Amino acid sequence: MDRRSFLKNSALGGSAAAATALAAPAYAQGKRTLTLVTTWGRGLAGVHDAAQYCADNITAATDGQLTVDLKAGGELVGAFEVFDAVSAGQADIYHGVDYYFLGQHPALAFFSNIPFGMTFQEFSNWYYHDGGRELQDQVSEIFGLKTFAAGNTGPQSGGWFNKEINSPADFEGLKFRMPGQGGEVLGRLGASVQNLPGSEVYQALASGAIDGTEWIGPWADEKAGFQEITKTYYTAGFHESGPNLSLAFNREVFDSFTPSQQAAVENVCAAANIWNMSQFMANNSAALERLQSGGVKVMEFPDEVWDAFGTNSVEVVRQHLDDPLYKEIYDSYMTSMKKSAAWISRSQGAYTAQRNRVLEAM
Amino acid sequence: MDRRSFLKNSALGGSAAAATALAAPAYAQGKRTLTLVTTWGRGLAGVHDAAQYCADNITAATDGQLTVDLKAGGELVGAFEVFDAVSAGQADIYHGVDYYFLGQHPALAFFSNIPFGMTFQEFSNWYYHDGGRELQDQVSEIFGLKTFAAGNTGPQSGGWFNKEINSPADFEGLKFRMPGQGGEVLGRLGASVQNLPGSEVYQALASGAIDGTEWIGPWADEKAGFQEITKTYYTAGFHESGPNLSLAFNREVFDSFTPSQQAAVENVCAAANIWNMSQFMANNSAALERLQSGGVKVMEFPDEVWDAFGTNSVEVVRQHLDDPLYKEIYDSYMTSMKKSAAWISRSQGAYTAQRNRVLEAM
Repeated sequence: MDRRSFLKNSALGGSAAAATALAAPAYAQGKRTLTLVTTWGRGLAGVHDAAQYCADNITAATDGQLTVDLKAGGELVGAFEVFDAVSAGQADIYHGVDYYFLGQHPALAFFSNIPFGMTFQEFSNWYYHDGGRELQDQVSEIFGLKTFAAGNTGPQSGGWFNKEINSPADFEGLKFRMPGQGGEVLGRLGASVQNLPGSEVYQALASGAIDGTEWIGPWADEKAGFQEITKTYYTAGFHESGPNLSLAFNREVFDSFTPSQQAAVENVCAAANIWNMSQFMANNSAALERLQSGGVKVMEFPDEVWDAFGTNSVEVVRQHLDDPLYKEIYDSYMTSMKKSAAWISRSQGAYTAQRNRVLEAM
Repeated sequence: MDRRSFLKNSALGGSAAAATALAAPAYAQGKRTLTLVTTWGRGLAGVHDAAQYCADNITAATDGQLTVDLKAGGELVGAFEVFDAVSAGQADIYHGVDYYFLGQHPALAFFSNIPFGMTFQEFSNWYYHDGGRELQDQVSEIFGLKTFAAGNTGPQSGGWFNKEINSPADFEGLKFRMPGQGGEVLGRLGASVQNLPGSEVYQALASGAIDGTEWIGPWADEKAGFQEITKTYYTAGFHESGPNLSLAFNREVFDSFTPSQQAAVENVCAAANIWNMSQFMANNSAALERLQSGGVKVMEFPDEVWDAFGTNSVEVVRQHLDDPLYKEIYDSYMTSMKKSAAWISRSQGAYTAQRNRVLEAM
């Protein structure tokens, strides 16, 4: 499949040249306001915070030469329209998660999350030191974008259900919110899958438009209020093991920055990664305790269900291997994940198992 | 114990005021060269790279307004003299690992590594979102420093030995290189512990001055060449579960920066954390394979040895609890580690166990 053939899926495809009016010289000096649109409703815990972190820190680190004005999902363009808007130069930057845009290019799954994919650390290993970043550039340039990893939610919870899940058959006919390739997997199990932006999930669940949903993890889920509607919560999930959030610039806008502005942006994005990942992880434990105190029943899927997730995930991920760029990225991703997992298990895994065993016995 | 009493241990203690000549106004405009000294020999894999990353990115992100000139250990001051040199204003910045300076303040152990301590992710949770950074500020200001987390080696290997370790008694009389509180633990097991900077370890091992050493992990250890001398290598270790590397500024120098320069520095340091952690983790797996191909025997300590590490580690860490600041940090650190570990086990731990089980069976 021709790489550029995906452009036909983008309503605004190929029009990145429309941003030419923003070319460099006019902006080389002085302060300049850039519009950042996001896939997040204003105030959504953690994900909106990551976007705000990027906006505030790019503004601060460039002394306002690049003043970033954040417009949350729906304020300027809809949550799912940000990719096309920035590709076309209608906005300067977006912050979001790229599995919302698999219709533009399926390989964006690797730069957000594939089911049974990398953890945050495995992704970071690949991204910064094992070819991931350069491959992301190849996808982004098709759409006139320059994209950076700029946030991560950590491993996401399996989600909120109106019943217990005891076998794969329990997904049959279930109306469930899950985006990306993970949603495709549930569809294969017979679920009726919906892809809603975060700001619309609570209402859909409360109204019965959906039977259940995944969102992020205990802290963000508690803030969203799902525990007010249902009390059955699965913690570990197969679908988003550490989704990467992207900060993507219209390519001509980014190219117009000075080298020092580009360096500032790059460092802010990397900083956002560890700051945001840690924000989720630091808050989840206490949030889970509060949810449990409030009557939420915390569950784990049985192995039989994990097996069904696994078989279908592998099939879903591999269905695009006829696309050469997708395959190149798949091969790089899988090779890197295997290497990282082996060392992490031998080092951090062995250490924490011993630490927890020894300290608990004392 | 008076917090400031630790100053007596510093040859240059209290002389941070000597840096007054570097006060703000003279430097508010124009380019300024700052001297960065390090605890690392030039070219030491990963750790020197983290220092260089900070130097290059601060220079780039500030457009050279802050031009950082890196002097490796021994080029301007010795590896173990950098803390005092920057505290006294003889150099502007140091990059290093703060357990080398426990004589200045024992609480620096929490901002480098305590035995049986936090992983990189647990440390980041605590540092950015659970009080760690603010507590670091309290320690640093005693010495006229402003310190940032700016690199991490990930979980370190148990090390290189001239024999197998089958029981705690095998440490009796062993001449072994290990810094910090971990070294104190081995001392309690009867080892003769030495604290050498990284650039001196190979020669000490080759000459027989020491029987064994830990350094970092497969990648950095291979670069250091220890496999040329001994072939018995323990991977998981108790002593450094994810040591944080510090970038510390003379406080008056840092205070003289503009807000945008300070923001740039802060973001570069956070970026260095994930970039450097990922560098080690991305390279270790392939390095371990090469070491094994070259005849290195990879081992794990038996539980009995881990138990002895654990009992002694807890005692070593707790021996400073009569110092109020140390105790405040200890309490915060331990509470945070317990919370983080619980959620990481339930989320990432459960996920990776299922992923590895399912994918291996396919």
